[in-house]
Amino acid sequence: MTRVAVLVSGGGTNLQALLDAWKGGTMPKAEFVCVVSNRKKAYALERAKKAGVEALYLPTVRYKTNDEYAIALRDLLQERKIDLVVLAGFLVVLGKPFIQAFQGRIINIHPSLIPSFCGNGFYGLKVHEEALKRGVKVTGATVHFVDEGTDSGPIILQKAVDIDPEDTPETLQLRVMQNCEWKLLPEAVRLFSEGRLKIEGHRVRILKEDLKEEDVQ
Amino acid sequence: MTRVAVLVSGGGTNLQALLDAWKGGTMPKAEFVCVVSNRKKAYALERAKKAGVEALYLPTVRYKTNDEYAIALRDLLQERKIDLVVLAGFLVVLGKPFIQAFQGRIINIHPSLIPSFCGNGFYGLKVHEEALKRGVKVTGATVHFVDEGTDSGPIILQKAVDIDPEDTPETLQLRVMQNCEWKLLPEAVRLFSEGRLKIEGHRVRILKEDLKEEDVQ
Repeated sequence: MTRVAVLVSGGGTNLQALLDAWKGGTMPKAEFVCVVSNRKKAYALERAKKAGVEALYLPTVRYKTNDEYAIALRDLLQERKIDLVVLAGFLVVLGKPFIQAFQGRIINIHPSLIPSFCGNGFYGLKVHEEALKRGVKVTGATVHFVDEGTDSGPIILQKAVDIDPEDTPETLQLRVMQNCEWKLLPEAVRLFSEGRLKIEGHRVRILKEDLKEEDVQ
Repeated sequence: MTRVAVLVSGGGTNLQALLDAWKGGTMPKAEFVCVVSNRKKAYALERAKKAGVEALYLPTVRYKTNDEYAIALRDLLQERKIDLVVLAGFLVVLGKPFIQAFQGRIINIHPSLIPSFCGNGFYGLKVHEEALKRGVKVTGATVHFVDEGTDSGPIILQKAVDIDPEDTPETLQLRVMQNCEWKLLPEAVRLFSEGRLKIEGHRVRILKEDLKEEDVQ
């Protein structure tokens, strides 16, 4: 069983998509153990409680440095024997001690087709504002493993969506969520929990169902 | 009638897609007037002749500077009263005198979803090599107006395609051509010839069929 923790800062619609998929039985090898927020009032904590998942509040202000926060968060998750960490709109930069402890076991969702519109400064609505400003006709979302860079880790899944000529950043954000994010993130957790994601350098190979790693060339 | 010139350096599969669409009657408001190549042996010139389109060979070695080449090319096309210039794998950097003479009337096809994998050094197979190296799961193609930057002009059309885990740069290049480039480029020429592409700052608005510009807000 893959023990999953979800880190969030906001409303948690991606968390809800995960919990719905889990409750719906689509990821029998995953167990959602806890949801952690750096913001006390994050609605995501309510969503966790409603689903019977432990809801934890870990504010950054309690810690002097980003690394101390990273260590506290790491310890919190290690106590709970977490196998997979899902970032679902977590607006704290994760320090090295955390990234290293969960190397290859942290996944993030980003609302664009990486490498477009990603990196420092690209988060939330800003991503969609920039896409519309550049005048692209296609955008999408990306689930990727987290490394020590920003949005630079190996890509697990991507899905494209057409931009509508009348889109505002808000309508585009919603469509990218509905058509891409809410589908990709549960799918990525399912694949991880089934042991089907294999990082090969900077690429992620998705192993076929019912094949163990050793069966694949 | 929109008088079209196509500039090519190589085999001209995109040119062929254009000629096929034109001969098939899908762009009644376009007329393909000439094809220009900087390489004498470009097979694209044969394709032009077979379609009854003037085939012109304009080598760069005849000219001392890039600007002189740009002026010669400009004059060649202006003599033929060209309205639209299509770059279909033309590997000469177009100098300012040319770009300025055909401002807003030059379109290019690029084998990625701009702004991913574009700019200096990204052309041909190199684009697909880089996409595979980065491990993206979705790529595609972009038709855009040409400005004085590299791949920086307003985007007209984009189309996405999934990457297959077994893709090599060559198989990916072919699929991007078949699924994206050969569809997007004729569509863009058709829209241009129908007067339906409106550049608004850095965005291209596609006007609805049978609406004149003044009917659209």
